[in-house]
Amino acid sequence: MNPWERYAPELVADLYEITMAESYLREGMNSEATFSLFIRDYPPDRSYFVSAGLESLLNILADFHFSDESLRYLASLRKFSTRLIDRLRNFRFSGTIRAIPEGRIFFAQEPVLEVTAPILEAQLLETLVVNVIQLETMLATKAARVSAVASGKGLIDFGMRRTQGVDASLKAARASYLAGFLGTSNLLAGKIYDIPVFGTMAHSYITSFHSELDAFHAFARAFPDNSVLLIDTYDCAAGALKAVEVATALRKKGKSLLGVRLDSGDLADLSRQVRLILDKAGFPDVKIMASGSLDEYQIEKLQNSGAKIDFYAVGTRMGVSADAPCLDIVYKLVEYDGKPILKLSAGKKTWIGKKQVCRFYSPDGKMDFDRVCLLGSEEEQGEPLMELVVEAGRRVQPPESLMEIRERFSGEWSKLPEKLRSIHPAQVFPVQVCPSLVELDSEIARIKRREEVEPFTK
Amino acid sequence: MNPWERYAPELVADLYEITMAESYLREGMNSEATFSLFIRDYPPDRSYFVSAGLESLLNILADFHFSDESLRYLASLRKFSTRLIDRLRNFRFSGTIRAIPEGRIFFAQEPVLEVTAPILEAQLLETLVVNVIQLETMLATKAARVSAVASGKGLIDFGMRRTQGVDASLKAARASYLAGFLGTSNLLAGKIYDIPVFGTMAHSYITSFHSELDAFHAFARAFPDNSVLLIDTYDCAAGALKAVEVATALRKKGKSLLGVRLDSGDLADLSRQVRLILDKAGFPDVKIMASGSLDEYQIEKLQNSGAKIDFYAVGTRMGVSADAPCLDIVYKLVEYDGKPILKLSAGKKTWIGKKQVCRFYSPDGKMDFDRVCLLGSEEEQGEPLMELVVEAGRRVQPPESLMEIRERFSGEWSKLPEKLRSIHPAQVFPVQVCPSLVELDSEIARIKRREEVEPFTK
Repeated sequence: MNPWERYAPELVADLYEITMAESYLREGMNSEATFSLFIRDYPPDRSYFVSAGLESLLNILADFHFSDESLRYLASLRKFSTRLIDRLRNFRFSGTIRAIPEGRIFFAQEPVLEVTAPILEAQLLETLVVNVIQLETMLATKAARVSAVASGKGLIDFGMRRTQGVDASLKAARASYLAGFLGTSNLLAGKIYDIPVFGTMAHSYITSFHSELDAFHAFARAFPDNSVLLIDTYDCAAGALKAVEVATALRKKGKSLLGVRLDSGDLADLSRQVRLILDKAGFPDVKIMASGSLDEYQIEKLQNSGAKIDFYAVGTRMGVSADAPCLDIVYKLVEYDGKPILKLSAGKKTWIGKKQVCRFYSPDGKMDFDRVCLLGSEEEQGEPLMELVVEAGRRVQPPESLMEIRERFSGEWSKLPEKLRSIHPAQVFPVQVCPSLVELDSEIARIKRREEVEPFTK
Repeated sequence: MNPWERYAPELVADLYEITMAESYLREGMNSEATFSLFIRDYPPDRSYFVSAGLESLLNILADFHFSDESLRYLASLRKFSTRLIDRLRNFRFSGTIRAIPEGRIFFAQEPVLEVTAPILEAQLLETLVVNVIQLETMLATKAARVSAVASGKGLIDFGMRRTQGVDASLKAARASYLAGFLGTSNLLAGKIYDIPVFGTMAHSYITSFHSELDAFHAFARAFPDNSVLLIDTYDCAAGALKAVEVATALRKKGKSLLGVRLDSGDLADLSRQVRLILDKAGFPDVKIMASGSLDEYQIEKLQNSGAKIDFYAVGTRMGVSADAPCLDIVYKLVEYDGKPILKLSAGKKTWIGKKQVCRFYSPDGKMDFDRVCLLGSEEEQGEPLMELVVEAGRRVQPPESLMEIRERFSGEWSKLPEKLRSIHPAQVFPVQVCPSLVELDSEIARIKRREEVEPFTK
């Protein structure tokens, strides 16, 4: 488990979750509620989402309780009854969670997770559930986009230093590995998630030596089997010629230089120059790695312009999902005490009831369309995406390894229609809503308008 | 201390920091190095930065060491010598840190922090230093922009659910309090940083009751002294009329309704309607709070359009600094073994040497211009911004409370010229670079070009 998640997850909550709990307790409202987690709409250029974060969430929930310290803090706010504090002291999640497994592809308006539990419990988890699932799903989706344009070139996560906190860096490393990256530069992620780690040297290393060539030789002495030399500190072409000297020296010792790295300038142009220098000198096997403000848009351009780059190190822009740093993800009450629930707030559609997402495939095995329907209704056909993961508060499936999830994503990707894989998608995947759901929805909306609005506005 | 920072900060590092350490150790390179942390350029619409994150960093460094578990992980990578692992086992930071205190305003190209230590030590901290200072500085800067447009209206951080991880949510709550917010909805931040917490109710609360009015009455029963009712679940005007019923009932008991909240729709228009309803009914003191996708741009529009909003709850867009989710912040070697250091990489200017930032004021007390100069040079005049905070590995100043830092920011803000406070700044604050620094820089660049580039490109 990610130890960054161990500290007081019971306070990963907005105050209102506790104020609502106070009122529910006072009013004796303890019926079963279902909350549905879904993403309302796509950020720019997105046409799918990659489910991620479920393992993190389930790990946190497995030991979810209110510590004495947390209870003391809540009591110190002087807003809550002793009765509520006592209720929280005995809090254990006793409900059901159904979710789309990690690594699967899903779409806007589809529930990715539903929590069913006594309302006090299900409501208390709102902020935690939203935060955990949004971050990893957003990052896995971003990383999938980077993978999509890299045409099989090796990808490495270099984002740690400028992610929004260390926790986010861990999730970026995990999400990118899930989406097919080779590994990360992030040591803590390497340790926690057992992800391969990669790293070379900084410009500071080069400049701390008397000369760039001295620095290269020194590095090769320490790592004769796997040196990647950063060659753009002073001038890329000059750096490449020095790298050739080092590669030649290594060859004499029966070793070989693994690669060189470019981190600035016109990477397409420089990579062609450097490739030529290396090839001419008899080192066609020395790889070229590129880094520096890369994302799916930059990599696509580089690939299209014939850059001679074997590995891309992708940093900040992926690590913070710079073009879409948040998702319009919400956790909405859809059923309470057996009754479907609806709100009418402008521009904020929520489909009511416990639901299932059903997937249908074309004859060629590609995803054709999805259908959202009421769970257990006759309309539930096709392949169900949401699985039961927690029942009566306990996990009903064994934990999944990151490798299994990575393989699941790889399988999903092969089934995603070509047009949707583009980072400039011109198409939206069809997500149908079952007729009975639409009908029920209209009916409840009519009732609510009649009961809640008309008497006050006529 | 934020407990989220306690876990293995020694592995908040990119692998290359350890590979470089291996080489430095092997080569016997242990001279003193100075690294300078600065932001290269402004993100769109930014004209200043608010220094933040120093307390977090110093707290982490106070107990920075390699645990046995972390050393076992590094050894398991089979890349490093036993000698390096032993060196890391005895690692303690023994250097000097100079920094611009938290809450002060600084500008692009100015060092906000400089670390001087044996190169192995100073280099090892790169990722940690960059990550901690960037996140809090970015968020404090964003929050200052929100404060700038709110014209004294109350501001509350509502961002926890969609920040990039929980750690980021804590920093967003802290940064916004630093920048003048009243508080946060974030319970964990409230506990850790002793920030006032605020919260009302969700739409789910309203919809779980038989009627909106029942929900309002129930909430007022639980919190008769400080209820804020969410009135947009079905219809804002209808909700406001129901809130009047509750306010009337409370008044009969000698209590009063604190406020109502709007979370969707045209907030300017709705707030005027709701204000009118409340005023007409004899409740001019009931406050109106607005939330829902707010940021400095939205709030400026609302303020300009005469919205009747008393409190703004600002969430995701501030919590992830959505329009600028990362800063172009770097940690660069500027001096090694007493010699100034320079790299020539395209478009990546770094000023060499240990530096000081000097501030000059206009006669009216406003900031006039800054000057970056070599530390201890005769050109060091005006008010020095960087202070000595760590010497020989130990803090030389007592920890600062968030309240002190908040007050410092408030003082700084009053000295920031009006034109730079705009969220659409048309002006760049003048930052001069001392002539001797420019001269030294050109000279080293000439030497490096002659030594490192020309022999290979002629």
